[in-house]
Amino acid sequence: MGSEGAFSAQKRSSGALPTANAAVNGGARGRAAALLPRGRQMHKTFNNIKITILCGFVTILVLRGTIGLGNLVSSEADAQNQHLTEETDKILDGIRSDKDPSDPDEAPMRYLSLNDTFSLGPRISTWNEDRKVWLEENPQFPSYVKGKPRILLVTGSQPAPCANAIGDHYLLKALKNKIDYCRIHGIEILYNMAHLDKEMAGFWAKLPLLRRLMLSHPDVEWIWWMDSDALFTDMVFDIPIAKYKDYNMVIHGFPDLLFNQKSWIALNTGSFLFRNCQWSLDLLDAWAPMGPKGPMRDEAGKVLTAYLKGRPDFEADDQSALIYLLLSQKQWLSKVFVENSFYLHGFWESVVDRYEEMIEKNHAGMGDERWPLVTHFVGCKPCAKFGDYSVERCLRGMERAFNFADNQVLNLYGFRHKGLVSPNLKRIRNETAAPLVNVDQFDIRHAAAHHTTEPRS
Amino acid sequence: MGSEGAFSAQKRSSGALPTANAAVNGGARGRAAALLPRGRQMHKTFNNIKITILCGFVTILVLRGTIGLGNLVSSEADAQNQHLTEETDKILDGIRSDKDPSDPDEAPMRYLSLNDTFSLGPRISTWNEDRKVWLEENPQFPSYVKGKPRILLVTGSQPAPCANAIGDHYLLKALKNKIDYCRIHGIEILYNMAHLDKEMAGFWAKLPLLRRLMLSHPDVEWIWWMDSDALFTDMVFDIPIAKYKDYNMVIHGFPDLLFNQKSWIALNTGSFLFRNCQWSLDLLDAWAPMGPKGPMRDEAGKVLTAYLKGRPDFEADDQSALIYLLLSQKQWLSKVFVENSFYLHGFWESVVDRYEEMIEKNHAGMGDERWPLVTHFVGCKPCAKFGDYSVERCLRGMERAFNFADNQVLNLYGFRHKGLVSPNLKRIRNETAAPLVNVDQFDIRHAAAHHTTEPRS
Repeated sequence: MGSEGAFSAQKRSSGALPTANAAVNGGARGRAAALLPRGRQMHKTFNNIKITILCGFVTILVLRGTIGLGNLVSSEADAQNQHLTEETDKILDGIRSDKDPSDPDEAPMRYLSLNDTFSLGPRISTWNEDRKVWLEENPQFPSYVKGKPRILLVTGSQPAPCANAIGDHYLLKALKNKIDYCRIHGIEILYNMAHLDKEMAGFWAKLPLLRRLMLSHPDVEWIWWMDSDALFTDMVFDIPIAKYKDYNMVIHGFPDLLFNQKSWIALNTGSFLFRNCQWSLDLLDAWAPMGPKGPMRDEAGKVLTAYLKGRPDFEADDQSALIYLLLSQKQWLSKVFVENSFYLHGFWESVVDRYEEMIEKNHAGMGDERWPLVTHFVGCKPCAKFGDYSVERCLRGMERAFNFADNQVLNLYGFRHKGLVSPNLKRIRNETAAPLVNVDQFDIRHAAAHHTTEPRS
Repeated sequence: MGSEGAFSAQKRSSGALPTANAAVNGGARGRAAALLPRGRQMHKTFNNIKITILCGFVTILVLRGTIGLGNLVSSEADAQNQHLTEETDKILDGIRSDKDPSDPDEAPMRYLSLNDTFSLGPRISTWNEDRKVWLEENPQFPSYVKGKPRILLVTGSQPAPCANAIGDHYLLKALKNKIDYCRIHGIEILYNMAHLDKEMAGFWAKLPLLRRLMLSHPDVEWIWWMDSDALFTDMVFDIPIAKYKDYNMVIHGFPDLLFNQKSWIALNTGSFLFRNCQWSLDLLDAWAPMGPKGPMRDEAGKVLTAYLKGRPDFEADDQSALIYLLLSQKQWLSKVFVENSFYLHGFWESVVDRYEEMIEKNHAGMGDERWPLVTHFVGCKPCAKFGDYSVERCLRGMERAFNFADNQVLNLYGFRHKGLVSPNLKRIRNETAAPLVNVDQFDIRHAAAHHTTEPRS
């Protein structure tokens, strides 16, 4: 419409400007023009010019997006940003694509049917004996060091960039947080970004991973699985590992919810310890069958929803499946320690608003509701496009939890965060020419520090 | 212009539509109307209507952005994405803001002038003796374990999310990469996300950090600083630390470039080892003065550009300053090992295209140009909006380096990446009921593994 208008306006004004002499040119227009006084003719001309300009303007506005003229009026920075995003997306697409030029026969994934059987691997039945022999033959790789069993903390995330840009930033911070705790407590750490078993995708991925790590690291006595959305918030608290010498699994939960209510949240598989032994291999084998994606997982989901209180309708998840397993097959429970004397898992919503109160009244090392060992952001899903809670509440909570923990690490260096949402630091202790005094007092690893370290607010 | 046109068009057509009876209404218009035949009147009316519609259309087009009408035509998914991004940005702004409600007197940063002096902290002159006494009093925190000195690998990144969304993803992967190397080689790791000293921002931030860590961790014998954009690409190679028993600093570089050419890239401070001793504290004190942001750093930059070959004009950087220091103050060099027998730092451009060739001809453990210990993505700056190289080349290179290294870690578990740009895995060894055989053969930490581990292509 715009262009038609422009063209017709141009046609109307394409002749010479009307003048008093126009009548001389003859024709209908000449006769009409002759009828109009000179002022009126000029007015008409100006009208035509206005229409032409207006229609031209409309044309440009409508078409600017199509012919890219919009870029001329955007800032150069916008253009560069757009280019950067396009390039990055192009690379990421290439990176995320599944094609391997040397692997042309890769078949599309076929879901197991209900008639198939699934197993994590060949049955191993002599793991305790095999491991014992191996440890004796390899004294340079002991499973106990200075009387303490070796623990490997295992966590991880998807191999691809997060759908939500901020997700990778919080994965990074959560990993730093775990590195700090593990360095202070002499725990090794492994960050997994690989899918070892396509069928056991999503929350089930930890099962093949646990098995593989147990069998590949016989010198590790305990594997501590921890979700990527869980943060350590007590840097001082040490797991009372001696308490579990007769157990093979330590998991946070509530006996009442488990035995009386059969609640689907009676236990939390976001943070648990798993001994490297035959019993654990057997448990994994019994746990896994509800996991394979497709009909098996869907059907299992229905069974779990029918059996467990409060469980919504969705495919089987590892947590519900474990609860179901422990309740329906009685041989496991005697070796499972249902722990709630400290926050091996601490649900974030009941914790994140109380950090200031904790700083005021309590101190690090308590590990329980007064100073939770772990603050676990269940449901926030910062890596995904959509979580179960508001973005604002989740990100603010994660920032506060991170800084609350970081203050306990920075205490040794004489700093703390300016506020629980600030990345910036303030000095709490001047530099000194006698720094070792501060090391003795503030290094968490020192026994003395356990009694005297109270990170100031 | 559009709106003026709209108003004037509306004025012209605001009266009753001209009819044959208009002449009855009197006035100039009436006289002019009476002169025009009916067809002409209708034509004029249509013209007026066209102008009105056109101008109204233009107004809407121009104003649509302002009054948000554009949103009506976006999809619901776009609206949700926009909402998510807006919420996230709002949180991030709140998070990045520097205001601390409990810290109202925070002064704006004042740059040091050329007349000021800067120091990293009070002068310490008895660190070797103090440290020796402390170590004797604290045998539970030895500086040597099984004859090997304790090394702390230090790396880090800015506390705020990256300006480029993909940046945090590669920081995460680079950190996982370092965790893997350190776990295999018994090295502790610390990831710093804090600015300890506002004046020493940017690449200079490592100086106050190194000092603080040395003084806070007397049991650490060597600190290994490594940039966040450097990746380990030889998971087998062990630093020949015994070689450096008479040295206090190990840095990658070339004697010819250093002594003969005084080149500004003669050494690389992206990956170097620094002994925890008095000499190192003294070096930091001598190194720091060119660092404070503002006039000091700017003036120092000019001195460095004049002195060093090939250095562009920009503020002083820590690398140029170190080279200048070592060449102009002769007392340091005797304790600095300029290492190039292996790739303590390996410039990525000359490495990333050769991984397939390396896999074919060489094996892990060489650590040099045949299988570089470190691939360092100098200049790529994935966290920033703009780097010195193409985004495509950098991201592809980083993905390849990461996977090349990850294959060496996954080898123990029986997997490798499908291709050097693929996040997906393929199995290279079946699950077995006798997994310990594979542990003996493929665990890098086993001496045997050093001779037999050749990650297959």
